[in-house]
Amino acid sequence: MKEQKGFSKQGFMNTLGATLESICRGKCEIILSYDSKLTQQHGLFHGGVIAAIADNSAGFAAYSLMEENYQPLSIEFKINFLSTAKGEKLKAKAEVLNAGKRIFHVRSDVFLLNEDQEQLVASALATIKATRTVSEL
Amino acid sequence: MKEQKGFSKQGFMNTLGATLESICRGKCEIILSYDSKLTQQHGLFHGGVIAAIADNSAGFAAYSLMEENYQPLSIEFKINFLSTAKGEKLKAKAEVLNAGKRIFHVRSDVFLLNEDQEQLVASALATIKATRTVSEL
Amino acid sequence: MKEQKGFSKQGFMNTLGATLESICRGKCEIILSYDSKLTQQHGLFHGGVIAAIADNSAGFAAYSLMEENYQPLSIEFKINFLSTAKGEKLKAKAEVLNAGKRIFHVRSDVFLLNEDQEQLVASALATIKATRTVSEL
Amino acid sequence: MKEQKGFSKQGFMNTLGATLESICRGKCEIILSYDSKLTQQHGLFHGGVIAAIADNSAGFAAYSLMEENYQPLSIEFKINFLSTAKGEKLKAKAEVLNAGKRIFHVRSDVFLLNEDQEQLVASALATIKATRTVSEL
Repeated sequence: MKEQKGFSKQGFMNTLGATLESICRGKCEIILSYDSKLTQQHGLFHGGVIAAIADNSAGFAAYSLMEENYQPLSIEFKINFLSTAKGEKLKAKAEVLNAGKRIFHVRSDVFLLNEDQEQLVASALATIKATRTVSEL
Repeated sequence: MKEQKGFSKQGFMNTLGATLESICRGKCEIILSYDSKLTQQHGLFHGGVIAAIADNSAGFAAYSLMEENYQPLSIEFKINFLSTAKGEKLKAKAEVLNAGKRIFHVRSDVFLLNEDQEQLVASALATIKATRTVSEL
Repeated sequence: MKEQKGFSKQGFMNTLGATLESICRGKCEIILSYDSKLTQQHGLFHGGVIAAIADNSAGFAAYSLMEENYQPLSIEFKINFLSTAKGEKLKAKAEVLNAGKRIFHVRSDVFLLNEDQEQLVASALATIKATRTVSEL
Repeated sequence: MKEQKGFSKQGFMNTLGATLESICRGKCEIILSYDSKLTQQHGLFHGGVIAAIADNSAGFAAYSLMEENYQPLSIEFKINFLSTAKGEKLKAKAEVLNAGKRIFHVRSDVFLLNEDQEQLVASALATIKATRTVSEL
């Protein structure tokens, strides 16, 4: 699967301990577990970690809809942090809102998972571009 | 210095290999060096890394203007990726555009450093809140 | 009703021909009809019109949850335009994602209405502040 | 001049009383004067008005760099409102940060003009697409 292959090549996702939980047409979920290497000054998940999986899940959700030989590149994203994030795991759930020929608009919500509860802790909107080669951006 | 102390407590900045390069009233610079653990699928800096130091430099730029006993929390940020980022180092430069009593609007630009050249690779706008305690968010 | 009263004082909403369609705890809908005074160069709804009702519905959705004597002020918002908007009416639907003491995170989607069909044409995320007086911002 | 021609076709800019003050390669300024039809509930400039000229100046700044037969379409934008806006005029100043083949990243700042003073009241980041036809979006 091209998505799993691409994901496993991302050194940064490995650094975060993030895994591609699920992917299907236009949707993607990424999960990671709490680790002290992912924290801000109070020992909570760092906003940069939350943003990274929000952005990345958006990219892969778009990737799942791209033609062969095209790859996702983030043009931009925006994220609102609804609350601080203290817990065991984070799950980013992305869904493509609109798929153009080359431009994809994607919503990505990030949830904190504690035992069986999910709490929405961040919401993002991203614009992803399908690019044939990296230099094409 | 409260900023350096706060920065050094962020496990995630240590994971990124990021350092607080400079901080003065309303401005902050963060630098990090290329490492394969910070990459996306093509071996370039991952957008999540770029976003993390953009956001964090914004937070510390605001922190430098906060009253005693207040700490920065990101309410939200948005980042545009102007080009892919291949190079030796990244430098995020943040500057507070407006400092309210509790709300700070901050611009943060991220540059790619190669030898003596600086190239703007991303631009962000962030909203930072001064909070007395984390739970206050 | 404080919301209807506040809305009717907004000269700009009157200029747009926008009406407060519904408002209840944390949710708000604003509608406007097509008019040649609201267009961009191709005779479609101008992005600025779409953004204005997205932002305003977010503000009023937050307003509905505010304590007495507090009023909404937009700190910032971001909007993605999913497609061009050609049609009879626009409807902005906002929903508060998280209500803090003073800070409200709100999602606002804008739909194009043609006969009985609704098409999502834009999606926004906004941060709204509860302020006692305007000068307090 | 294609830019002036396109601008004058925008019914909404006429409704706002906005004029294309200047345009040159990658830069654009739009000005409008205070009018009670442009207000929020306290008689100040409505955020939607500020956003509309921020977005539009970004679009025209990008337009000035586009090849013949291409027109600007806003993919998305984000705006931070630094302070409330009470004054005689608003001026939006946009500048292209990066011009790709089809994607343009643009910064747009909005100033309040009172007599000879300029005050930054909002800052925006926009992504503009060059499109051959509207339906191509």
